[in-house]
Amino acid sequence: MPVGTAGSVKGLSPDEIRVSGTQILLANTYHLMLRPGSDLVRELGGLHRMMGWDGPILTDSGGYQILSLRERVRIEEDGVAFRSHLDGAREFLTPERAMEIQADLGSDIAMTLDHAVLLPIDAAGARDAAERSLRWGERSLRRARACATPTGARQLCFAIAQGADDPALRAEMAARTAKLGADGYALGGLSVGESKEATWELTRVSNEALPEDQPRYLMGMGTPLDLVDAVALGVDLFDCVLPTRNARNGMAFTPDGPMNIRNAVHARDPRPLDPACACAACLQFSRAYLRHLHIAGEMLAHRMLTLHNVTFYQTLMKTMREAIEAGAFERFADAFRGRYRGADA
Amino acid sequence: MPVGTAGSVKGLSPDEIRVSGTQILLANTYHLMLRPGSDLVRELGGLHRMMGWDGPILTDSGGYQILSLRERVRIEEDGVAFRSHLDGAREFLTPERAMEIQADLGSDIAMTLDHAVLLPIDAAGARDAAERSLRWGERSLRRARACATPTGARQLCFAIAQGADDPALRAEMAARTAKLGADGYALGGLSVGESKEATWELTRVSNEALPEDQPRYLMGMGTPLDLVDAVALGVDLFDCVLPTRNARNGMAFTPDGPMNIRNAVHARDPRPLDPACACAACLQFSRAYLRHLHIAGEMLAHRMLTLHNVTFYQTLMKTMREAIEAGAFERFADAFRGRYRGADA
Repeated sequence: MPVGTAGSVKGLSPDEIRVSGTQILLANTYHLMLRPGSDLVRELGGLHRMMGWDGPILTDSGGYQILSLRERVRIEEDGVAFRSHLDGAREFLTPERAMEIQADLGSDIAMTLDHAVLLPIDAAGARDAAERSLRWGERSLRRARACATPTGARQLCFAIAQGADDPALRAEMAARTAKLGADGYALGGLSVGESKEATWELTRVSNEALPEDQPRYLMGMGTPLDLVDAVALGVDLFDCVLPTRNARNGMAFTPDGPMNIRNAVHARDPRPLDPACACAACLQFSRAYLRHLHIAGEMLAHRMLTLHNVTFYQTLMKTMREAIEAGAFERFADAFRGRYRGADA
Repeated sequence: MPVGTAGSVKGLSPDEIRVSGTQILLANTYHLMLRPGSDLVRELGGLHRMMGWDGPILTDSGGYQILSLRERVRIEEDGVAFRSHLDGAREFLTPERAMEIQADLGSDIAMTLDHAVLLPIDAAGARDAAERSLRWGERSLRRARACATPTGARQLCFAIAQGADDPALRAEMAARTAKLGADGYALGGLSVGESKEATWELTRVSNEALPEDQPRYLMGMGTPLDLVDAVALGVDLFDCVLPTRNARNGMAFTPDGPMNIRNAVHARDPRPLDPACACAACLQFSRAYLRHLHIAGEMLAHRMLTLHNVTFYQTLMKTMREAIEAGAFERFADAFRGRYRGADA
């Protein structure tokens, strides 16, 4: 899922999102709650109609902002008090309110409110946040059943399992969360300070405890290599800002690894970003021109690198789906890892 | 002509420029000379190929930057010395060099180097710059005949008449410039401090001295009302940053006048910018959403307002062409002026 924090995948039009191969996108409850406000989104007919996007939308719950905006947050059992990053206004987000807002937004998949924590954390803190995430998950699901979207369309609800970096706690919380009867399950609070080895061990034990026949969603990840490794562990769904945010910083993803378009080596290069890519950037423009546009601060550079990167991510996911169906996933993964070079985030 | 200073109409893709109704766009010699460099543009096959734009392109000569960058400029008879606004590097632009660069860029229409001046200016200064513009025009045209574009395509050359705010000098310079045998003629150095009444008087006397059967180009203007007034005086061609620059500041042009999308009155308005407009912004998005995107600093706001504004300008020009052909220009102009309200720049 490309990320459309404020109700727009930064730089892309709905047509371009579609053409990139995107099947579903993510929007952020916390940000939309503050601006333009969920009441306005409902009044405008919901996110789909407001954004002009007729594909599925998943909304997060605001739980991740407990971690990312931790300086502006106070946790209580009833919910979380935020001071708005926009104007300092006080907001109180309960599990119930998180579901009401997501119903206003009219997303196809809502997420339960969870309590994400930064690592390292002690055992008591990890247990406390994980148990709270489970209690909030129950409260979220109960309220979700009573909410209606602007169009009356049914909204699915995924529950989030936490557990910090303790494999036993992760396994336990995944198993208990799986009993909530949600429409899908997510692993929250990963890739927030632990080693990559730990991320995959925690993903593995969590996935083993989650139902195989329901979606498993690894939140907030990752690099192309991360996606391959996570799919190998049974993950179905991701969201990540890398393809869009890094595009604006001049990074283009390619099968050979990331490319920094600012580098002087591209200054006179007439080739496209990736000769094998069929996105509008690669069909129309040279690296030399895209580098010029990026250095000149032209919006078209951000647009084209974003379109290319989202296309790259969606093509990677599509190729993995096809490889799985053909029983050739391991072969694909080895080939991809063998070609892809460099630190990619 | 929408303005693509650095080789990109800010915010728009080549497809969108085309769909907006644009027949020809402008790019800036001075800016492209500094970055990415005209040698690189030639190496990449010229501006059309570099930008992915197969319609006509007009390049200015750098003469306007004598005025807009006057703190960084020293005029000599041979040419103009610039200190680059990017890195302070010294550049010397002669009439000959201006044409060589434009040949490298491979534009369809090149402009002669002129000496534009800010108003007010005394009679001697006005005469001096106007005579120099004529001499530089002759030198430009002579060199242009010896230059080749990257593709070998023929390049037309328009000459620029100056004359500050003295109608007699303007009439004289237009008549003398018309004898240069250029492919078209431009009025330079207007709307640079004089009253609107003076602009139109100077345009009128200049146009009377220029051939009716060749294009007359009013450089650097203007608002929608300006375009109507100038067409009434026989102007054929314009370039202006208003539709693109003002879009990025939140201004949308409509038949009722300019609209500031930031205004609170639009916050909950489900209507498009202009219900009669068929641009992608008006077909897909509400004022409320575009206002939200603009306030949130989302690129899509800049893109959509730019697309709308360029479409508005091109539709206005197309409607005027059709009205002229139907012998109904005055009726159209009266109706347009009667409906359009407000200061529009």
